[in-house]
Amino acid sequence: MAQVVTLGEAMLRLSPPDFHRLEQATSFDVKVGGGELNVAVGVARLGLDSAWVSKLPKNPLGRMVRNKAREQGVDTSHIVWSDSGRVGIYFLEFGANPRASSVLYDRAGSAMSTLQPSEVDWSRVFDGCKLFHVSGITPALSKSCAEVTAQAVRAAKAAGAKVSFDVNYRRKLWTPEEANACLVPMMESVDILITTEEDTGIVFGIREPSYQQVAVRLHERFGFEVVAITLREDLSVLRNNWSTFAYANGRFYESTKYECELVDRVGAGDSFTAGFIYGYLTGDVQKGIDYGTAYSAIKHSIPGDLNWATLEEVENLLKGAGSRIQR
Amino acid sequence: MAQVVTLGEAMLRLSPPDFHRLEQATSFDVKVGGGELNVAVGVARLGLDSAWVSKLPKNPLGRMVRNKAREQGVDTSHIVWSDSGRVGIYFLEFGANPRASSVLYDRAGSAMSTLQPSEVDWSRVFDGCKLFHVSGITPALSKSCAEVTAQAVRAAKAAGAKVSFDVNYRRKLWTPEEANACLVPMMESVDILITTEEDTGIVFGIREPSYQQVAVRLHERFGFEVVAITLREDLSVLRNNWSTFAYANGRFYESTKYECELVDRVGAGDSFTAGFIYGYLTGDVQKGIDYGTAYSAIKHSIPGDLNWATLEEVENLLKGAGSRIQR
Amino acid sequence: MAQVVTLGEAMLRLSPPDFHRLEQATSFDVKVGGGELNVAVGVARLGLDSAWVSKLPKNPLGRMVRNKAREQGVDTSHIVWSDSGRVGIYFLEFGANPRASSVLYDRAGSAMSTLQPSEVDWSRVFDGCKLFHVSGITPALSKSCAEVTAQAVRAAKAAGAKVSFDVNYRRKLWTPEEANACLVPMMESVDILITTEEDTGIVFGIREPSYQQVAVRLHERFGFEVVAITLREDLSVLRNNWSTFAYANGRFYESTKYECELVDRVGAGDSFTAGFIYGYLTGDVQKGIDYGTAYSAIKHSIPGDLNWATLEEVENLLKGAGSRIQR
Amino acid sequence: MAQVVTLGEAMLRLSPPDFHRLEQATSFDVKVGGGELNVAVGVARLGLDSAWVSKLPKNPLGRMVRNKAREQGVDTSHIVWSDSGRVGIYFLEFGANPRASSVLYDRAGSAMSTLQPSEVDWSRVFDGCKLFHVSGITPALSKSCAEVTAQAVRAAKAAGAKVSFDVNYRRKLWTPEEANACLVPMMESVDILITTEEDTGIVFGIREPSYQQVAVRLHERFGFEVVAITLREDLSVLRNNWSTFAYANGRFYESTKYECELVDRVGAGDSFTAGFIYGYLTGDVQKGIDYGTAYSAIKHSIPGDLNWATLEEVENLLKGAGSRIQR
Amino acid sequence: MAQVVTLGEAMLRLSPPDFHRLEQATSFDVKVGGGELNVAVGVARLGLDSAWVSKLPKNPLGRMVRNKAREQGVDTSHIVWSDSGRVGIYFLEFGANPRASSVLYDRAGSAMSTLQPSEVDWSRVFDGCKLFHVSGITPALSKSCAEVTAQAVRAAKAAGAKVSFDVNYRRKLWTPEEANACLVPMMESVDILITTEEDTGIVFGIREPSYQQVAVRLHERFGFEVVAITLREDLSVLRNNWSTFAYANGRFYESTKYECELVDRVGAGDSFTAGFIYGYLTGDVQKGIDYGTAYSAIKHSIPGDLNWATLEEVENLLKGAGSRIQR
Amino acid sequence: MAQVVTLGEAMLRLSPPDFHRLEQATSFDVKVGGGELNVAVGVARLGLDSAWVSKLPKNPLGRMVRNKAREQGVDTSHIVWSDSGRVGIYFLEFGANPRASSVLYDRAGSAMSTLQPSEVDWSRVFDGCKLFHVSGITPALSKSCAEVTAQAVRAAKAAGAKVSFDVNYRRKLWTPEEANACLVPMMESVDILITTEEDTGIVFGIREPSYQQVAVRLHERFGFEVVAITLREDLSVLRNNWSTFAYANGRFYESTKYECELVDRVGAGDSFTAGFIYGYLTGDVQKGIDYGTAYSAIKHSIPGDLNWATLEEVENLLKGAGSRIQR
Repeated sequence: MAQVVTLGEAMLRLSPPDFHRLEQATSFDVKVGGGELNVAVGVARLGLDSAWVSKLPKNPLGRMVRNKAREQGVDTSHIVWSDSGRVGIYFLEFGANPRASSVLYDRAGSAMSTLQPSEVDWSRVFDGCKLFHVSGITPALSKSCAEVTAQAVRAAKAAGAKVSFDVNYRRKLWTPEEANACLVPMMESVDILITTEEDTGIVFGIREPSYQQVAVRLHERFGFEVVAITLREDLSVLRNNWSTFAYANGRFYESTKYECELVDRVGAGDSFTAGFIYGYLTGDVQKGIDYGTAYSAIKHSIPGDLNWATLEEVENLLKGAGSRIQR
Repeated sequence: MAQVVTLGEAMLRLSPPDFHRLEQATSFDVKVGGGELNVAVGVARLGLDSAWVSKLPKNPLGRMVRNKAREQGVDTSHIVWSDSGRVGIYFLEFGANPRASSVLYDRAGSAMSTLQPSEVDWSRVFDGCKLFHVSGITPALSKSCAEVTAQAVRAAKAAGAKVSFDVNYRRKLWTPEEANACLVPMMESVDILITTEEDTGIVFGIREPSYQQVAVRLHERFGFEVVAITLREDLSVLRNNWSTFAYANGRFYESTKYECELVDRVGAGDSFTAGFIYGYLTGDVQKGIDYGTAYSAIKHSIPGDLNWATLEEVENLLKGAGSRIQR
Repeated sequence: MAQVVTLGEAMLRLSPPDFHRLEQATSFDVKVGGGELNVAVGVARLGLDSAWVSKLPKNPLGRMVRNKAREQGVDTSHIVWSDSGRVGIYFLEFGANPRASSVLYDRAGSAMSTLQPSEVDWSRVFDGCKLFHVSGITPALSKSCAEVTAQAVRAAKAAGAKVSFDVNYRRKLWTPEEANACLVPMMESVDILITTEEDTGIVFGIREPSYQQVAVRLHERFGFEVVAITLREDLSVLRNNWSTFAYANGRFYESTKYECELVDRVGAGDSFTAGFIYGYLTGDVQKGIDYGTAYSAIKHSIPGDLNWATLEEVENLLKGAGSRIQR
Repeated sequence: MAQVVTLGEAMLRLSPPDFHRLEQATSFDVKVGGGELNVAVGVARLGLDSAWVSKLPKNPLGRMVRNKAREQGVDTSHIVWSDSGRVGIYFLEFGANPRASSVLYDRAGSAMSTLQPSEVDWSRVFDGCKLFHVSGITPALSKSCAEVTAQAVRAAKAAGAKVSFDVNYRRKLWTPEEANACLVPMMESVDILITTEEDTGIVFGIREPSYQQVAVRLHERFGFEVVAITLREDLSVLRNNWSTFAYANGRFYESTKYECELVDRVGAGDSFTAGFIYGYLTGDVQKGIDYGTAYSAIKHSIPGDLNWATLEEVENLLKGAGSRIQR
Repeated sequence: MAQVVTLGEAMLRLSPPDFHRLEQATSFDVKVGGGELNVAVGVARLGLDSAWVSKLPKNPLGRMVRNKAREQGVDTSHIVWSDSGRVGIYFLEFGANPRASSVLYDRAGSAMSTLQPSEVDWSRVFDGCKLFHVSGITPALSKSCAEVTAQAVRAAKAAGAKVSFDVNYRRKLWTPEEANACLVPMMESVDILITTEEDTGIVFGIREPSYQQVAVRLHERFGFEVVAITLREDLSVLRNNWSTFAYANGRFYESTKYECELVDRVGAGDSFTAGFIYGYLTGDVQKGIDYGTAYSAIKHSIPGDLNWATLEEVENLLKGAGSRIQR
Repeated sequence: MAQVVTLGEAMLRLSPPDFHRLEQATSFDVKVGGGELNVAVGVARLGLDSAWVSKLPKNPLGRMVRNKAREQGVDTSHIVWSDSGRVGIYFLEFGANPRASSVLYDRAGSAMSTLQPSEVDWSRVFDGCKLFHVSGITPALSKSCAEVTAQAVRAAKAAGAKVSFDVNYRRKLWTPEEANACLVPMMESVDILITTEEDTGIVFGIREPSYQQVAVRLHERFGFEVVAITLREDLSVLRNNWSTFAYANGRFYESTKYECELVDRVGAGDSFTAGFIYGYLTGDVQKGIDYGTAYSAIKHSIPGDLNWATLEEVENLLKGAGSRIQR
């Protein structure tokens, strides 16, 4: 009976500590992450019931991934367990100017990429669900994953849930043409689109002089209830400005701009999504933008994909909590 | 025969490494710290004999705290050893913009909070003492600690020592009203007051348009020989500007302003106090301000509450040592 | 709707790595543990639904404890959240012959010790419950905890659940007389008693030439359905033999004796309890002894209080899995 | 111009520190290993020129594997670099009695498994070569790897080199029937067979009452110049006895039996092979057995697959160096 | 047959992690570095064959230094192995504003400082060599090292190789007068001089209003083919601007200026030299400046003296790769 | 006014963690140790005032060594501070059967080795002293150290103190002949000789069928008040039996034999000396043997040269404390 359901892959995330390069690593810090898992965790931490649907192998690493979702209160009872396939891995290398951080994916052959439409009972999953979230990564994993994603979107709509979608284009997984062909039909069922200007250009070919115009064009073309765009200014590898923006109901919603000292920016976009979903479901678009942006700004300071901040911290930041030590 | 004596609690300090949040910790770095211990250590490192008076339980953690004082050359022979009570703990979480660093105290029931006036032989402690230092934390620990503090201040004056006092208001320990009621009577014996504008407002209700006026008002009300105020500008969580200021002899003393890249700012105020005491006892107010500010500016770069800088480094910074690597 | 419910305190467990002594620690490994939590986790890992009832403070450490239970699939929805009190801590120092491992408790003032009878809705907790487990530590925490324990035992019986009880005498918490006065009346509701010869002597004054006779005497005096006794031979600090024994239905049940190379023996007794409960509820006394002993023998090799072994591993050990590397 | 050439896959090896289970890992120690790489490294450390032939992807992990070979002086100029495929991974979990250590393979899709017969210029590789070594793992990786192995064995013989072969049966890679079908034809070109009684039974169906008889039977069936068998007694997970034995020239060669305290036994067999090759090429069968056994006994005490011992240490052990600290 | 040969000492580099001060260290990170080794490694990583000539003791630390060179593909066959002498050590302490990073040398008595002219067969070393590089540190190590350096420079010229020289004045090793007396005669054989304005002033007494004029004066006085100068602006301890400049063929060559977030700036100058050599030997002065500056800018972000960047990364930076995470 | 004074060198001790070999180290654990410092620390921990005389360089490492002595309560006011010389280093590699642990010394050029007879005011040092302890390492460091040792022994006797001497022959420092020539004359002032059978043979040429006879012969030749001999049985690298023995007053004193699981045996002999001194000065020979053996048996389980056990723990072991976990 989760209010928010997400579908996607989670991976083991291995990163050398202390800015070491992958090639020179002698140890890896181990975390777990993946776009839709990150969203489910964020939503659960902020106070809504959430469930994450995925497929994992029956081995210690599969259990580790499940445990990390469960640790955060995410319902993992819909996970499909597999006798074959692996847990995908991504290697994350932290950089500092002028060396950008970088990711090396090693996700081929994951159990999740073998998920079949017949393996999930969506009517059970969506019982009581208010919102279903998925990103453009899930359908890119494999042909069957694309089918499952389309099936899930339809089932969510049928169950009366809203659908939110994060474009999240990954060039290692598919070409712009493939993404376009797969995603465009799906967009008609999407209520909330979350994207960046760059991804919109790549996947939908929509390029406009301003992000406001991009949002309006997306709305015009697909009829989204809400279009949300995240805006990152890379001052350097370790300092970014971060804000977001939404277009809905014919008007523009702007967030505060946060200066972030980057400990770990991976998952910030997913934190925005989680905070937006929380704010939107418990309030309105502006609350979504406010909570989403604050929650994701804090994410930049937290190691790992998952966002260990609390609702109270988000609200304190929105009230103007400063950068002085808190005793 | 310590020239400088301090009285207060020291705690185990536990902090997750690498910006991890407390909730996600899998290990803690262990340090030891506490306002008055930090001052005693600073004074000893700069070259004066110092002693630290406290109460500790007879167990490995009590010994660890004592050892860390002893390691720095602080006289620990006046510590009262207890069969009951615990070593207080504080958990420190390091943040990055926009997440401030934060402290979670777990200090209730400490052996120090049970210190009784009868347990310390102050005439022996203050034999040869030139200055006694205590902060507003010590009397806030318990009723008996308030009594011991008052007793110690009186004994120090009786022994011909100066008294320095750092307001250090802690809202977790007492209310502004309680602090005011306890501290105001004590102020008549205080020679050197160290404070911030914020604490002065909370505890003494003194709020003025400028810190200079705050200092003058404090002098007028309590007759302090020196009023020193630390001035922190939080540019971000990881970058602060730091300077200090004193009012004495009817004039204002200003320090250099240092740009600090924050590795660990805890104990910076105590380092200022230590450096000021050193400079003042071996020179004058300006030397106190100069040495105190330089020593505490360096503190921001050193892990732990204790300030491992040396007198030579303080003097090199005052001479203009740059930020280039030193070989 | 948990099949097995436990009630008790869990603590932060801090241990210096690599056999360092507490007094010389520069870092602590952080784990979470506590007798009844350990049992709930063990039962969940082996495949039964379990819930853990406790009281935790609303802070990051309270959440951490809850998270670790949740990570293992334990139902934490019955935890009482508190605005005051702390998470108790125990410091664990690993030894090697001839220095024994040792524990320093710092648990006074825990939120759990303030749990009141009015704070738990036992009828909701025990809905569908087959077995309730608690140890002698919980009633020893405070007067109100003793009341809650007695209340819980009564409620469990009323709900038709069996009650298992681990004597677990802790001399730091109460005297033998206090334990006896509190526990004897409770024993009439206990179905399964788990104990050691030593604890039985201290708490019930039952001392016999053999553990078999101890078990028979316990049965005679209190009418327990099952009496289970764990048998540890300390060959050295790092090598122990481990076996268990039960008396039920008028006969004796013996386990295999395992030679254990000790990585971390804390929680082994709780693992026995968990394995026994699993085996007994899904089979009979012999299955309880077999699974309990195998599961707890493996525990000696696993860092932390919690037992990360799986049912499959337990069954492989029972089938004779050797000590050769498994590929 | 390497005297010894080996062919095989090397993997990233990830292991949780301090006996943690894979499922509970928060960090992994990173090493590199693989049977034939381990042999090439051992041979190089003992003083012969060696080269390792493999296929690696052009990414930081591929370079890391190459670097680790190069660090030990192994010639890596024959490695085939690939735009696709991954570096295989194996996860190693260290156990203690009664929990055996265990390996979780994640090697599917490795670049090495795509190695084609056309990609290696064997005449260049074997220029000056005295001995070629490969194990039963390499042909098991893929059909093309089986072809490359057969090709390499033929080319080695043609170049006048001896061929040594370690059976190393891996049930995760193929069935006994597949192994038998592939390996039996290859055996006619093998001069030195290294195996265990267990593997000989599985792959060749040769099972005899004693290892001596197994060796004789192997010789009779395939005409090997030398049959060497490693003999491990698992006293417990952390203590093993280790010795080896050879049959050649119609007589039996026995080694000393070493009691090993196991830090890391992975790669011990490969160390035996390396030491045997060194001893045999620079002496005779007995020297091979002596050096191989001593070198591999030391391996048990060294973290990682690679054996960082030196020729001098091997010779000191053979001369009776004791277990007392060496200053 | 190395295209680039360097001569110099490498040391063990020990640094306390996480900004700890040397005095408070409980562990050291271990790296290996030394000016000319760093250059040989950089050149090899960028794609040219390189060899490093040095003298090392026959012990594990000597082997470790050799291994680290070998790991990067540097030819170590010309290293002279010694029965006496030690591996020099330098302790590196990382600072943050206003505490500069600092180095404590412990290099007296190194095996390298005992290198004798008779110990290296330069005709063999320089067979096929295009460029020989050495810095002002090598002749400063000892009288015999000064002789070996002069001998090597002559032999390089005789073999038709260019000579590059990095002034690298170290006040702990010799006085400006000693440096001047030793280096001036050597300059006549130098083709490429790499220096800073500061070192030029100290060693050659050349001080001019601009670095351009310094370069021109150096050219006029010694007739260098190229004079390259590195330009560092210390914005703070953790942020520097970095650019370089060359004078050759009667014109000035400028590089891009990079803003560097400093993880570890040690070895940046050596990386410039390596990149310059690569660019110059495979192109021209501008390519040298471009590749040298980009490669060394990246160095600031990489832990250790050695620069683990790749040619591809250098070229991407030159093409304008941004600071956004790379997936 | 220390009751016990020792004279000797202390070194930085660097050891790779987790049984890594020195050659493969990526980090070192940092400890401080040296025979006579270890003794001074042991004596202080057991409850007597002690002072340690040495010479250290004025740098962070020199201060670190001083701090570690001070942390344990040892009087460091007699240390001679030097502008030149280094802190000696020893590298310690932990082994496991059949690889012994080993030490690589890097102590040449230490400040201590330059200590001159004129630098210590022995009359001040020995004011109130009851016992002076030194080992055979100190005179072996240099000619001037031999002179200072002889001077100190004479001064101690003159001040009415007993002299204890630990032979501690180190073959890396001098030959048996040199040791004999230096030590024999010194023996006439020695009251308590601590040695092993092996060292007695090497240095004094005394070899007898039993250690009892060795002790009698030593007594006969030099007239020692007490001869104490430590007896180690190396069952394996990680398991030793440990006991001691003394000859005094014409009779033999035996200790309990302890089975030790070796975490770190370095400094065990020094712990025996410290415990013996404590027991002998506060009791008699038997108390010396008992306390010395128990204290040193515990040492085997404690990381580092220094023995962090307490008097209470020693007495508990003597009372028969077992190997079961202590709560």
